[in-house]
Amino acid sequence: MNPVEARLRVRYAETDQMGIVYHANYLIWMEVGRVEYCRARGIRYRDMEREDGILLAVVEANCRYVSPALYDEEVIVRTWVAQAHPRMLRFGYEMAEASTGRVLATGETKHLFCDRERRPMKLPAKYRAAFGMS
Amino acid sequence: MNPVEARLRVRYAETDQMGIVYHANYLIWMEVGRVEYCRARGIRYRDMEREDGILLAVVEANCRYVSPALYDEEVIVRTWVAQAHPRMLRFGYEMAEASTGRVLATGETKHLFCDRERRPMKLPAKYRAAFGMS
Amino acid sequence: MNPVEARLRVRYAETDQMGIVYHANYLIWMEVGRVEYCRARGIRYRDMEREDGILLAVVEANCRYVSPALYDEEVIVRTWVAQAHPRMLRFGYEMAEASTGRVLATGETKHLFCDRERRPMKLPAKYRAAFGMS
Amino acid sequence: MNPVEARLRVRYAETDQMGIVYHANYLIWMEVGRVEYCRARGIRYRDMEREDGILLAVVEANCRYVSPALYDEEVIVRTWVAQAHPRMLRFGYEMAEASTGRVLATGETKHLFCDRERRPMKLPAKYRAAFGMS
Repeated sequence: MNPVEARLRVRYAETDQMGIVYHANYLIWMEVGRVEYCRARGIRYRDMEREDGILLAVVEANCRYVSPALYDEEVIVRTWVAQAHPRMLRFGYEMAEASTGRVLATGETKHLFCDRERRPMKLPAKYRAAFGMS
Repeated sequence: MNPVEARLRVRYAETDQMGIVYHANYLIWMEVGRVEYCRARGIRYRDMEREDGILLAVVEANCRYVSPALYDEEVIVRTWVAQAHPRMLRFGYEMAEASTGRVLATGETKHLFCDRERRPMKLPAKYRAAFGMS
Repeated sequence: MNPVEARLRVRYAETDQMGIVYHANYLIWMEVGRVEYCRARGIRYRDMEREDGILLAVVEANCRYVSPALYDEEVIVRTWVAQAHPRMLRFGYEMAEASTGRVLATGETKHLFCDRERRPMKLPAKYRAAFGMS
Repeated sequence: MNPVEARLRVRYAETDQMGIVYHANYLIWMEVGRVEYCRARGIRYRDMEREDGILLAVVEANCRYVSPALYDEEVIVRTWVAQAHPRMLRFGYEMAEASTGRVLATGETKHLFCDRERRPMKLPAKYRAAFGMS
């Protein structure tokens, strides 16, 4: 399935004294991308968590920083499902500056589906198509 | 009652591109001060929240910035109870650079005691002495 | 002058274990509002800082929390100039949930115009109209 | 060389509505670990950056989440140099809950030494021993 695009603008709070975006914020942007991925596929992650008690626990995250994002730049976060399994999901991401297309970073997160007590579980069938599970 | 002191060191993540600590972080430091205030008075805020279901909801916060905190400086957060009432609590704060005593900021937060559903409640009697309530 | 509206969506990272937005984030949202205020008045704050070396240093911030913002809600930040003077600026803010209009918080920040060395200065004449200075 | 230990306490601001520490914060803790690693080896990273204009730019970060950190827990961050080269440095990290030794996460960051304009450079000889470069 095609990547889903989310847009955000770099906040002053996200910069550090190097004059660029502090690197941990890219993980937050990936989360923004993930949520918009779900929304584009017809799932509101909030409801999945609140109503069905399904948590998408992060078990691994990584990010490669290509070019620093700067204050007030507009960023496009492209998100796709890299691997999908009823118990596990991997998302891939590419973040780019909107006006020039300059790639800022690429990343990946791996998740387990968990219940409210954070015990691993299988994703209920009704949600599987959204993540490209056969 | 005397102020309680907490110490922390400025993190790179807390700076912004002005080369100083981003102003919203002082509210986080006040929270650090609050928790240490409670601990010094024999209360672990975590347990108050988890075991007795008492939340200290923030209803007002303010901060006056006197001198910017810089990366890697050690900061002392002094916290005291400015006003105490079974339904309401106000904390006062002074933040200073540890080695020179340079005042960085002063602030205040106002809180309501709430139950798990965030409904206002009276603080149970057993906790009142810690906050200087008669 | 009329308030300027900025929109944002609550991020998971902005929530805390109370299940609501952590209170320090509202100061970050006010900053988002401020930047959009400037943009709507024809000023890109980034350029004011980078090209003309004018910093809008925060000297005071306060926030009154009315109703908690929740994860994934859309928030409107309304920003206006509460007081303007060539050396000082006060912004007022109201934050509301977009779909219902529920007020989340109101706040205020006070700023001094500073040069790159953070020394107070007068705002150059060309910028004054944007902030409603006569 | 042996790992260097840094200690920190989980802040309320670092939790999310899942009731655990939000995953991006572990990257901030790694940064805390890195700075203490440098200090233990006789280098104040702040001075290296400020006085010698050497930046330790992050080019890659990854984290594996083993067991969630909870509010108010004390965390030990163990940091070591995983690979060192005059142009590049990799740090390894293990984060554990202090009272029980429960492992929370492990991670790695890769850095390039850069000058003030963020151009890659070789680390000056005087700093090399601290990072175990021969």
